[in-house]
Amino acid sequence: MPHSSQAENSSRTQTQLRQLVTALDSGTSQQVHHMLRTLSPQSIAHLVESSPPHIRRVLWSLIDEDVDGEVLQELSDEVQAQILEGMDTETMVSLVEGLDPDDVADILQQLPDRVMAEVLSAMSDTDRARVEGVLAYDEDTAGGLMNTDVISVRPNLTLDTVLRYLRRHEDLPDSLDALTVVNRKDEFIGLLPIKRLLTGNPGATVRELMQTDIEPIPADMSDTDVARLFAKYDWVSAPVVDAGGHLLGRITIDDVVDVIREDADHSLMSLAGLDEEEDTFAPVMRAAPRRAVWLGINLMTALLASFVIGQFQETIDKVVALAVLMPIVASMGGVAGSQTLTVVIRGMALGQIGRNNLSWLLSRELGSSMLNSLIWATVIGAIVAWWFNDITIAFIIAAAMIINLLTAAFAGAVLPVFLKAMRIDPALAGGVALTTVTDVVGFLSFLGLATYFYM
Amino acid sequence: MPHSSQAENSSRTQTQLRQLVTALDSGTSQQVHHMLRTLSPQSIAHLVESSPPHIRRVLWSLIDEDVDGEVLQELSDEVQAQILEGMDTETMVSLVEGLDPDDVADILQQLPDRVMAEVLSAMSDTDRARVEGVLAYDEDTAGGLMNTDVISVRPNLTLDTVLRYLRRHEDLPDSLDALTVVNRKDEFIGLLPIKRLLTGNPGATVRELMQTDIEPIPADMSDTDVARLFAKYDWVSAPVVDAGGHLLGRITIDDVVDVIREDADHSLMSLAGLDEEEDTFAPVMRAAPRRAVWLGINLMTALLASFVIGQFQETIDKVVALAVLMPIVASMGGVAGSQTLTVVIRGMALGQIGRNNLSWLLSRELGSSMLNSLIWATVIGAIVAWWFNDITIAFIIAAAMIINLLTAAFAGAVLPVFLKAMRIDPALAGGVALTTVTDVVGFLSFLGLATYFYM
Repeated sequence: MPHSSQAENSSRTQTQLRQLVTALDSGTSQQVHHMLRTLSPQSIAHLVESSPPHIRRVLWSLIDEDVDGEVLQELSDEVQAQILEGMDTETMVSLVEGLDPDDVADILQQLPDRVMAEVLSAMSDTDRARVEGVLAYDEDTAGGLMNTDVISVRPNLTLDTVLRYLRRHEDLPDSLDALTVVNRKDEFIGLLPIKRLLTGNPGATVRELMQTDIEPIPADMSDTDVARLFAKYDWVSAPVVDAGGHLLGRITIDDVVDVIREDADHSLMSLAGLDEEEDTFAPVMRAAPRRAVWLGINLMTALLASFVIGQFQETIDKVVALAVLMPIVASMGGVAGSQTLTVVIRGMALGQIGRNNLSWLLSRELGSSMLNSLIWATVIGAIVAWWFNDITIAFIIAAAMIINLLTAAFAGAVLPVFLKAMRIDPALAGGVALTTVTDVVGFLSFLGLATYFYM
Repeated sequence: MPHSSQAENSSRTQTQLRQLVTALDSGTSQQVHHMLRTLSPQSIAHLVESSPPHIRRVLWSLIDEDVDGEVLQELSDEVQAQILEGMDTETMVSLVEGLDPDDVADILQQLPDRVMAEVLSAMSDTDRARVEGVLAYDEDTAGGLMNTDVISVRPNLTLDTVLRYLRRHEDLPDSLDALTVVNRKDEFIGLLPIKRLLTGNPGATVRELMQTDIEPIPADMSDTDVARLFAKYDWVSAPVVDAGGHLLGRITIDDVVDVIREDADHSLMSLAGLDEEEDTFAPVMRAAPRRAVWLGINLMTALLASFVIGQFQETIDKVVALAVLMPIVASMGGVAGSQTLTVVIRGMALGQIGRNNLSWLLSRELGSSMLNSLIWATVIGAIVAWWFNDITIAFIIAAAMIINLLTAAFAGAVLPVFLKAMRIDPALAGGVALTTVTDVVGFLSFLGLATYFYM
């Protein structure tokens, strides 16, 4: 169960945080400094992300200079931007020194263009060329994810030569599961998996043992598609090529894992009108405006629902029990609709849903909704008949419930597909659009039926 | 943008699905069979998951026998269970032949105990022993994720000897980024990264070059914690040990990626009362009961809100405009609360939130909520004053809005932490608990204030 395990892991972070806060309170930054030295850059980054702004600033100032770049690289974009704010160029250059070009590019993209240009021009020529190679591509594409630390070999070499060539390296790139095979024009022609290199006959050539059934990744493929390919084929790394098939770099699984996390977070956060990169500990002035937009939109849709109710003032005036019961119909529609919406949005994110199976899915949702609406309409009808001792109002709420639950299933299944066709993010707009529909239809069907029977 | 890229990738699946449906409709299963042969097991699995039940059955029957095991292993638990239903033992045994022990264990766990025992006893002794080794551990732990295909070496060997030893293998395990170093008692003592093996002096010993600063994973660690370690340290594989430190197996990143996806899905699906393994194309009779539970719970909480409104029937009878406006206060509270709830639940899933920073987070939420409630109370007050030409009701709705948005922020921040302390999954119960609070407080504050001013 994810739940209990989160507790364990979280408790470790929490213990470290408590020690940290105690040390900071007692004023011994020496002690904090010492504590940070025993932690990995990843653990420090997690502590920074788990701290409110004022502690973040102190923490950052106490991190050793030789790991601060690595810590920065592990932080989310929003927290990075916060730390870089107001930092001078020189500090930035020393900060990013020694990081992978793709990570440097990610960090630089948090900066205003002018500052980015300054930092780039202060870097060494080789470093700048590498980083600019990555910066040429959008952050959300394969080009923006790749590293240029590729080890490539020619097909005519023998394994023995390759092994000797590798031994001349001081260090090899991380996640090296295959060497890239290129021709004279530096065009990708295949991969030589390290395990074939290790088990193959030393006299055999690279050509004999290389894998050629692998399609390299085009530099402009979106990061989400890259992540899906990695997950599908269990890759550890994959080569990236330009439009002409020339080798540009390679993407490794560690960068892909971050993409998978962000994409999975996207639906959850968007449904609440939030951004997937949202910093948990953003200060009030950063958090409030984002929430405001969503609340404002909801206020408009709530007013629309009120306007609908307003059309039935006379009916309510006559039968005040209607006012007591009407939120039930709207609320049930909202819950039923969001269940359908969540299933469809997730299915779309997984690339499972399109025009071919939408009609099946819609009829499944309507079928499931019909069953549920019959059950719960009966239950609410019985409760209301007993509560208000009025069989007419019991019948009205039961009928309105059936109408609204069927509407909810229809809207929940169709809205996201419609929004996507309009190029609007279904996860972001789906929730509001849906509750607008279920509120309006809920009040309209309940109060409309009541007006028909009572007036 | 995840959105546009999903469109591209999804369109490819959709094209394949369309071809498939056309081929199935025209009755040429020969053609479908041919089409499936050109696809990888992963692509076939994706097609199966993207198909309604009746097409799934036909698809499955047309998959080549030599890839059906691999296809099955790629499917989600729920779809696996569906396909295995009613299959005879012999077919199952041939199906799982050649798969990794951890994948076989996953598949067998979908079966009733009796059938599982039958399949196990029909397997070869070696295969059974391997699978039982994994089955001994819970599916959600490191033991359940691991494979037993570890290559281990002794510390006193030279690199040259190790290289010769590896060359004697026909094939090496996938994702092999390091060899495991064990002592005579088979206790884990370190890792020899393949890259050190490749660059190191052939005469050097394993002991000189091995990494000893790596903590092996205990077999009973939860899969979520394992995933967090992989993401944190960018591992490709990691050794698993028993309580005594003896090497049991290794976990590879491809299995961890699945865990990361499921965990990220958990919050999204739970908030709608759904399971993260929910099959998008589950038939009505499977989908409806799950939804019913959630709708039933919501009906109870909606009745509670109605009961609150019922206490104010006289007031509503006197000022019918109250009935028109009251859903606005409840709705705004629900949206504001779910924003806070989502941020806190995600922060908890990332292990960022605990007792140390909760009070900071709570004050940030209250601060942000105060700002927003002032803005939107003013807006709604102005609109209502103009709409109903009544300054008292404008003041009442503004005041109720402030009360409910502050309550929403408090409940959204505190409820998940409270639920977790009660060992209830906050993602599952948080949404309902929250809207109950915001509905009740919304109606109570608005109608209560109205009663005070009008009665």
